[in-house]
Formats: sequence, C-alpha cells, structure tokens
Amino acid sequence: MRLIVQKYGGTSVGSAERIRNVAARLIETQRSGAEVVAVISAMSGVTDQLLKLAGEVSPQPSGSEREMDALLATGEQTSIALVAMAVNALGGKAISLTGAQAGIVTDRAHTRAKISNINPKLIEELVSEGFIVVVAGFQGRTVDGETTTLGRGGSDLTAIALAGALGADACQIFTDVDGVFSCDPRVVPDATQMQEIAYDELLEMAGAGAKVMQSRAVEFAKKFGVPFEVRSSFGRKAGTVAKEETASMEDVVIRGITIERKQAKITMAGVPDAPGTASRIFSAVSAANVLVDMIVQNASDQKTTDISFTIHEGDLPQTEELLRPVAEEIGAERIATQSGVAKLSVVGIGMRSHAGVATRLFDCLGEGGVNIQLISTSEIKIAVVIEERDADRAAQLTHAAFGLAKPAL
Amino acid sequence: MRLIVQKYGGTSVGSAERIRNVAARLIETQRSGAEVVAVISAMSGVTDQLLKLAGEVSPQPSGSEREMDALLATGEQTSIALVAMAVNALGGKAISLTGAQAGIVTDRAHTRAKISNINPKLIEELVSEGFIVVVAGFQGRTVDGETTTLGRGGSDLTAIALAGALGADACQIFTDVDGVFSCDPRVVPDATQMQEIAYDELLEMAGAGAKVMQSRAVEFAKKFGVPFEVRSSFGRKAGTVAKEETASMEDVVIRGITIERKQAKITMAGVPDAPGTASRIFSAVSAANVLVDMIVQNASDQKTTDISFTIHEGDLPQTEELLRPVAEEIGAERIATQSGVAKLSVVGIGMRSHAGVATRLFDCLGEGGVNIQLISTSEIKIAVVIEERDADRAAQLTHAAFGLAKPAL
Repeated sequence: MRLIVQKYGGTSVGSAERIRNVAARLIETQRSGAEVVAVISAMSGVTDQLLKLAGEVSPQPSGSEREMDALLATGEQTSIALVAMAVNALGGKAISLTGAQAGIVTDRAHTRAKISNINPKLIEELVSEGFIVVVAGFQGRTVDGETTTLGRGGSDLTAIALAGALGADACQIFTDVDGVFSCDPRVVPDATQMQEIAYDELLEMAGAGAKVMQSRAVEFAKKFGVPFEVRSSFGRKAGTVAKEETASMEDVVIRGITIERKQAKITMAGVPDAPGTASRIFSAVSAANVLVDMIVQNASDQKTTDISFTIHEGDLPQTEELLRPVAEEIGAERIATQSGVAKLSVVGIGMRSHAGVATRLFDCLGEGGVNIQLISTSEIKIAVVIEERDADRAAQLTHAAFGLAKPAL
Repeated sequence: MRLIVQKYGGTSVGSAERIRNVAARLIETQRSGAEVVAVISAMSGVTDQLLKLAGEVSPQPSGSEREMDALLATGEQTSIALVAMAVNALGGKAISLTGAQAGIVTDRAHTRAKISNINPKLIEELVSEGFIVVVAGFQGRTVDGETTTLGRGGSDLTAIALAGALGADACQIFTDVDGVFSCDPRVVPDATQMQEIAYDELLEMAGAGAKVMQSRAVEFAKKFGVPFEVRSSFGRKAGTVAKEETASMEDVVIRGITIERKQAKITMAGVPDAPGTASRIFSAVSAANVLVDMIVQNASDQKTTDISFTIHEGDLPQTEELLRPVAEEIGAERIATQSGVAKLSVVGIGMRSHAGVATRLFDCLGEGGVNIQLISTSEIKIAVVIEERDADRAAQLTHAAFGLAKPAL
C-alpha cells in the first residue's frame, strides 16, 4: 500500500473548525487507499503566547534553553492530540505521537537540535494496524530522553525526515499557498505555478526571498533524496514537487524570479587591499547579529578596493554606527550607504548549460531603464541590486524576457 | 540534608507574576538548607481551555481517552517549564521533569490512572546535584510509554506519592486556604485553624463538603503513611498537618464541622421489605450518574420499610422521574421528595472513645429549634440532614457546644 506523509502548518490547524477539516482530509487520504502519517505544527499563535509567557517569567530565557524546549514542545503536543481526537470523532482511527514517541532522536543542541536518527518501527506498526499516525512536528528527544526542538521550519524537517526514514511514496507539505510560482503573482499577474523544481533551485529561491520553505528542510530533503510536494491545505489542486534535478529540467533556462525589498547597501570605499580587512569588517557586523546578504568586492586600483554588501534596511543605522571605528582602524577612505534598494534574483539550473543568461538579464533591465547597482552570481542564480521603486517593473520585464508567463489560452 | 516536596496548585501559578513568586519561594526553601522537589499543576484556566477545544473538535471526546490524556498533560508541562525558567532567571538552578521523566509509572486506565510504581532515581540524582526539581503533577506514563493522567486531585496525589517514594522529610501542599478549619470561617467567625488532623478525619471532612483535598490523595497518604501539610501559598503561616492518628488526638472529641448545602432528600415509603429492593433503587440512580450521599433505611412495620437518601438538589427532577417506574415495579407506596436541605456533619476520631457525642449534638440542635430530618453515623462522623435555612445557625450552635472556638485572648 502507498504510504503518504502529510504536513500541516499552524494556520491549517489554527481553529477547531480547521482541525476538523484536516482530520477529514486525513481520513479521505486513507480511504483513497493509502497509509497516512500526519505531521502537525502548533496552532497558529500558540508558540507566540508561550514565548510571551516565557519572557514574562524570565527576562533572559536564553539561560533556560532546555526549559524553552520543554515549553515550546507543548504547542505541537496539544495540536496532535486535538487532530487525533477529531479523526476519531469523524469515525476514523488515529493515534498521536510526540516526537520522542515517534522515535525522532536528536543531538543535545536545545532550541536548534539536529535529527541524528529516526527509529520508525512504532509508526510502521501503527500504520499497518490501520491507524492514521499523527506526529508532533518540530520536536524530538535526545538519547537521554530530554525534549528538544528543531528550530525554525522544524515541522517541515520532521515531515521530510519521516518520509525518508519510512520510505514514503509521497511527502506533502500543506501550506497557505498553492505551490511555488515563477514570480510573486501579486507583482506579476501572469506568473505560473511550477509543476516541479529542483532542490537547489528551491534553496536559491528561499534564500532570495521566496518564503515557501525554510532552507534547512530543503537541504535535508536534498541530502537524503526525499522528494516532497508543496501544496495548499485549502484547495484540492496539485502543488509543486521539489526533487532532484533531472535532465529535462535544464531545458528551462530560468525557473523563477524573486524580489527582496527593504534592503540597504553599504560600501566601504578605498579600503587598503590587505589580508584580513574583509574579515575585520564582517566579524564586526555579525557580532551585532546583523545578517549580511550579498557581498561584492572589486578593486578600483592596485592598492585599494571597494567592498559592498547588503543588509536589511532596519539594520542600517546600527551597522553604520558600528562600522565607523572599523573604517578608521582599517584605513578605509569612506563609508557610503543607501537604503530603499531591492534585490532581484533569477534562479534556474538551466543557466549552467545556457550561455548568455546574464547578458539577457542586463539587456532587459537596461532597456527598461532600470539601473543596476550591484551584481552577484552563483552557479544557478544571478542577483542584482536595484532601486526599490523599480522592483515591480524589473520583475515584470524579466519575467517576460525569459518567457515565464502563462501560455495564452 | 532535609528533602522537602512542595506542591503548588493552578491558582498559585495562575500568572507570570505568581509563577515568579513560586520560584522565589522554592529558592528560599532551598537556601534554608533543604533539597527541594516541586510538584506543579496547570495554570488555572488552562485545563478548561483544553477541554473546550477538545469538545469543539470532538463532540464525544470520551472515545479518545488516550488523546485526552496526551492533550491535558500539556497543561502541566507548560507550567513546569515556566517555573523552572523563573527559578533560573532568579539565579537558582532548576530542571523540569514530566511525569514520565520523573519515573511515575501508572496503569493503563487513561484519564483516571493509578500510580503503580515510582522510580525516584533521576530525581534523587538531580537534587543531590543541587537542582530544584520541578515535576509535572497529575500525570505519569504506562510501562509502554503512553502518557496518562491521574484524574481529579491528581497533582496532590503526585506530591504525596513522590514524598513517599523519596522518603521526604516534609510534603507541603500549597493552596489558597491557610489550612483546615474547625468550620468554614465565613459561617463561624471564631473557627480555628487546626494544627493537625488525622487522615481519617480529613477524609470524612472532604467527603462531607470541606473541599481542601481530594479524597484519593488523602487515602494514598494514609495507605503509605505519608504525612503532609496543607498551607497557603500567599502567606508564610504554618498550615495543618495531616498524619496518622496519635493517642493525643483522641482527646479532642470533635475535630471539625462541615456543611453541605443544596441537597435534596428522597424517601421511598412503604417499600416491601424484600431482598434486592435497595439494590434495584440505587442501581437505577447510579446508572443515571447521580451521586447518592447519605442512605438511611428504617422499617416502620414488619412488612414494609422506608428508604431515604440524599442527592444534589440539581439532580432531583431527573431522579424523581427515573424512580417513578422503579417505585411501581417494587411496589412502593409513594415517593416523597424535599429540596432545600443541607447536611451538617461533625467529625472526630475522639468520638470513638467519648460517649454521648450524638446526644450532645441532638440536644444542641433541639434547643436551638433545628429540626433533624435524617441521621446517619459512621465510626468518626455523625451527619444530620436539616433545613438549609437553619444550616448556618446549626453550625454556630454546634461549634460552640463542642468548644471548638478560638480561645479568647
């Protein structure tokens, strides 16, 4: 019999009514002739409530990471019990399992644990007895029986890891979007939903602002070769399947386009070209917990170089402040900053085998009068920084230039 | 070093501020030179919220008792993590344990499990390492690792059972009352707080309307000889110690007086005095889940008998209804009912060795013009049914007659 793992996020189980819908869907899947394992997140809002309480009893909950895990794990434990009850109430047969009961063993890194091993024996027994097995996402246990949580995107990770360990025939990640699109449909109305996407493409798109899945879960799927489908929990339409790349995928030059807004650009100009200067700059920035996205360096003459990088706009004042003494120390000529910029990325494994992708992108933006401020490329992605006010138009132009639009009816 | 088990109920941990207070108290107890194990209930209101959600997803959650336990156990798991965090935030050193982690093994009777075994090894290790060990009340696990809950009063039971298994030097049950009183101080202003009470007396008082502790927890303490102190979590005053009876306890004729209001009395009159009639009546009543309190039978002639019993007033219409066909079947002459009655009980192991207690009670009520409708006695309790409007006055008269008042200053 087919074995299907279905993951439902916090919004999908956000109320009693939605929980009943999920239960009905699980029963329907089982009755279609499959064994069913469900992975469930905490009801939306619950984790935030728990974090708020934690903040009230302990101004620095970071000193109690073990307790934070014990606390947060209750969110998923509540929702799995409710989902199992709802299945039973609808005449189905369900049993809930915590991460620990489900055999999900992790390392000891509380609040950001890594799955080290899964023992799927109990789940296998239960599904073969006809149970819909409802597993708590986001959590596991150490070999000593301590409760751990997997950090952001943890429930997706649980689903993919279980699908891998169980050798599932399908892993379906239910979310509030229909799948992965060639571009944000709010920006590009004729954006198309992809039928499939390579793991690497999804990773680049996630890193570039398309928040469909957390990168950790996708990386895990890639590492263990677990295909999964991202689809909507509200409709019945097929979603987008993420899987290992196939030869035919390379026929598509560009898979998708992403825009990340509210970025800021910082340039340290006239930096003496000596070993260790870049390290000095970025260790100072990361020590302040500011996330750096793109980094571009180009030498303007023999002795000095310009280093530019992008950060989130909100981090700009703090970063400018902390870089002033650094600039002095390393002998930089000046610091230039610009907020109100956006990053546009085009992603596709096809660009490995298709020449001229970058040229086509630059041409299309140039013809549209969109000025490019920074360029950064990887094997399957080209990212450019542009004025934020040009972002929508740039996305529309690029989408058309690479032929990503829906075919006309 | 002394080992102290402290139990805090839902009201004591009902908000972040109260959780911090409990944490401070635990640290203070440890610094006074003791090893400390805390048993914590769910924050007040949380269990009701979970039950409400369960009712919304499943009209008959009784079909999912395993899931109900998994659901309800999260309430205590949340509060122990928060208490442990709060202790850590105040500079203490705490660790939370679920019932399962604490080694509390139960039978498989979900929602009303009995503790079958406690393995206190982990707790002993942790307290000897200087941890304040914060254990989830009300829950355990089966030998197969399934989560179970202990039913009403379960957290008190956890505390007493742990105190027994650990050989604790003290077990303190913190509640919102100062201790056990000779009568309800709202009715009898000069009621005194007892320093000590025998398990049996506390059991009779609990059964008679003084809702200090659930009977199951007291019975457990009696069975395993675990003394415990009921005291307030808001003040610093000593409470009431429940323990095995001592010779000196018998010097006190009456320990306390309780009143239970909103009772109703039903009399089946002229019932043929044949084997099985009482059984027929009470099996019909209990099948409808109506709790019967006092039962009194007295034969009025050779051939027939009158059977009277008390129930909660709210159950009267339903009970009257269901008894009509039963009365016909067994050939009873008539059914008489009366609502608006109350039960007054006097409790004390001293009445075993003091003659005339009943007489003194009846005299005092008679002199006060309080009419007695039913009498029922046990070895250490005398209960009478009276008009509810006489209840307060009857309690005051009895309290004075048995010399229970506070000594004048």
